[in-house]
Amino acid sequence: MSFTYHRTIRFSDTDAAGVVYFANVLSICHEAYEASLAASGINLQSFFTNSAVAIPIIHASVDFLRPMLCGDSIIILLTPQPLSEHQFEIAYQIIAASSEQSLAKAMTRHVCIAPSTRKKIQLPDELAQWLC
Amino acid sequence: MSFTYHRTIRFSDTDAAGVVYFANVLSICHEAYEASLAASGINLQSFFTNSAVAIPIIHASVDFLRPMLCGDSIIILLTPQPLSEHQFEIAYQIIAASSEQSLAKAMTRHVCIAPSTRKKIQLPDELAQWLC
Amino acid sequence: MSFTYHRTIRFSDTDAAGVVYFANVLSICHEAYEASLAASGINLQSFFTNSAVAIPIIHASVDFLRPMLCGDSIIILLTPQPLSEHQFEIAYQIIAASSEQSLAKAMTRHVCIAPSTRKKIQLPDELAQWLC
Amino acid sequence: MSFTYHRTIRFSDTDAAGVVYFANVLSICHEAYEASLAASGINLQSFFTNSAVAIPIIHASVDFLRPMLCGDSIIILLTPQPLSEHQFEIAYQIIAASSEQSLAKAMTRHVCIAPSTRKKIQLPDELAQWLC
Repeated sequence: MSFTYHRTIRFSDTDAAGVVYFANVLSICHEAYEASLAASGINLQSFFTNSAVAIPIIHASVDFLRPMLCGDSIIILLTPQPLSEHQFEIAYQIIAASSEQSLAKAMTRHVCIAPSTRKKIQLPDELAQWLC
Repeated sequence: MSFTYHRTIRFSDTDAAGVVYFANVLSICHEAYEASLAASGINLQSFFTNSAVAIPIIHASVDFLRPMLCGDSIIILLTPQPLSEHQFEIAYQIIAASSEQSLAKAMTRHVCIAPSTRKKIQLPDELAQWLC
Repeated sequence: MSFTYHRTIRFSDTDAAGVVYFANVLSICHEAYEASLAASGINLQSFFTNSAVAIPIIHASVDFLRPMLCGDSIIILLTPQPLSEHQFEIAYQIIAASSEQSLAKAMTRHVCIAPSTRKKIQLPDELAQWLC
Repeated sequence: MSFTYHRTIRFSDTDAAGVVYFANVLSICHEAYEASLAASGINLQSFFTNSAVAIPIIHASVDFLRPMLCGDSIIILLTPQPLSEHQFEIAYQIIAASSEQSLAKAMTRHVCIAPSTRKKIQLPDELAQWLC
C-alpha cells in the first residue's frame, strides 16, 4: 500500500556544505516507513525490538538528484512490494512540496529472520497486511 | 512567545539501550525551535546561513526524567526569554502526549554575533518580534 | 581516573552553519566516555545493554566557547567524580589539538538503576574501579 | 589508492534493535573517505566548503551482511576508482577487526560540479592525485 509522508528539512539534517548530509536521506526514508507502519496500526516499539521476529534491512540504495536545504518542505512517496514470503522492498520518491521536482530516489530491501538463529522466517501477518 | 511542537520518537533517535540517545533530546528541542521560528515567518535557510548575523548556542543543559521509546508521541513546550539586546534563552518542557507526564526539561542560551568578528551585535528585528 | 581522547571533527558532525552541530558536542563527549570505559577493560556491548543494571544519564550541560570545523583535531579531557554510591559526574574539557585553545566544556551526571524497577542501586564494581 | 581505516562502533551509532542503525553504516564509510583525503594532504575544511568546486555524492548503495554492535572494532577498506574526468566511485568493504568476517559492503559515486551552475567540471588536481 502506497503511503505519503510530509517532512521539513531540519538543521540537524544538514552538513557544512549547506545541504542534507547524504546518509540522512535514508534516515528520512526510514521515518516515512515508520509512519506508514504506525498508520496501519503496527506498534513501532514492539515491532523494532521484538525478540522473536526481526526484519533488518539487507540492502539500501539512493540517488541524489537535487540538494535539500534547511526549512525545505518535502514529500516522501513510499511504495512497498513483496518479493517472497520473507522478503520485501520499499521504493521511496522524495519530491519538493512546492515545485514537485524530484529530489532523490531510494530503495530498501528487508528480510524477516529469527534473531536467535538469523534464519529466514515468514513475514508476520501484520506486515503481510501492510504490504497489500 | 510560547510554542507547542508535536513529535513522534523515531527509530533513528534511539540507541542500543532501547531509548532515545541522550544528545538527541537536544536535537528534538532544536527542531521545536526551528518550527517556532518558521511559524513566525522566519526563513530558516537564510536564518541559519546568514553571513552577516549568526546566533549560535553558547550553552545548553538538559534533565532526563523518563525514558522515551520509538513510536512515543511527545509534545515540546518552548518558552523563549530575552536576556539582553544580544542574548536570549529558551526553556523546553518535553511531555508525553498521552499521559502528560514530564519526560525531560532543557534550556538553550543563544547570543547574536557578527560571524566575521565574532563580536556581539543586536538581535535582528524578526527575532526580537519572535521573542515577544 | 582522568582520560584523554583524540578525535577528528567529521563532516557528519557539522551543520549548514559550517561548524559542529551543538548537540553533537555531547555525542563526542560520550565517545570519550566509551573509550575510557573500554580502556579500563569494560565490555561496552554488555555495559550498555545490561538488563540487570543500567546507568542512564540524568543531566547534561555544555558550554560552547569556539566553533569546531570539519577536519579539526580535538582532544577531550575526561574527569569522572563519584557523587554517592549510585551516582557520578563526568567533566569534559574539549581543546584544540594544535593551539590547546579551549573549545567547549561539558558535564554529564549518571545514576545507577535497576531497569525493571527504575530504583537506584549501587554502582557495579567495574565502574567503581573505573571511577578511582 | 586503497586506504584502510580503523573504527570502533559507538553507542550513538546504534539503535533500539541493539545494532548499528542502517544509515550510519554509510556515515562510517564517509569517515573513511575523509580520513583517506586527509592522509593524502587534502584540507577537509576547504574541500567540503569550497564555493568554486563541489563534489557531491550522486549515488550510494550498501549491503548489510552481519550486525555490528557497540564496542566492535571494525576495519573499512576503501578503494576509489575514476569513472571519467568528472566522476569517480568508491568501494568500501567493512570487516570485523577480530575475525576478518565481512560485515557490510558499500559504494558511493561522486561527481565534480561548479556549485553556482551545477554543471560538471573537471576533478581538481589534488583529487586526481588521490585517485591514483
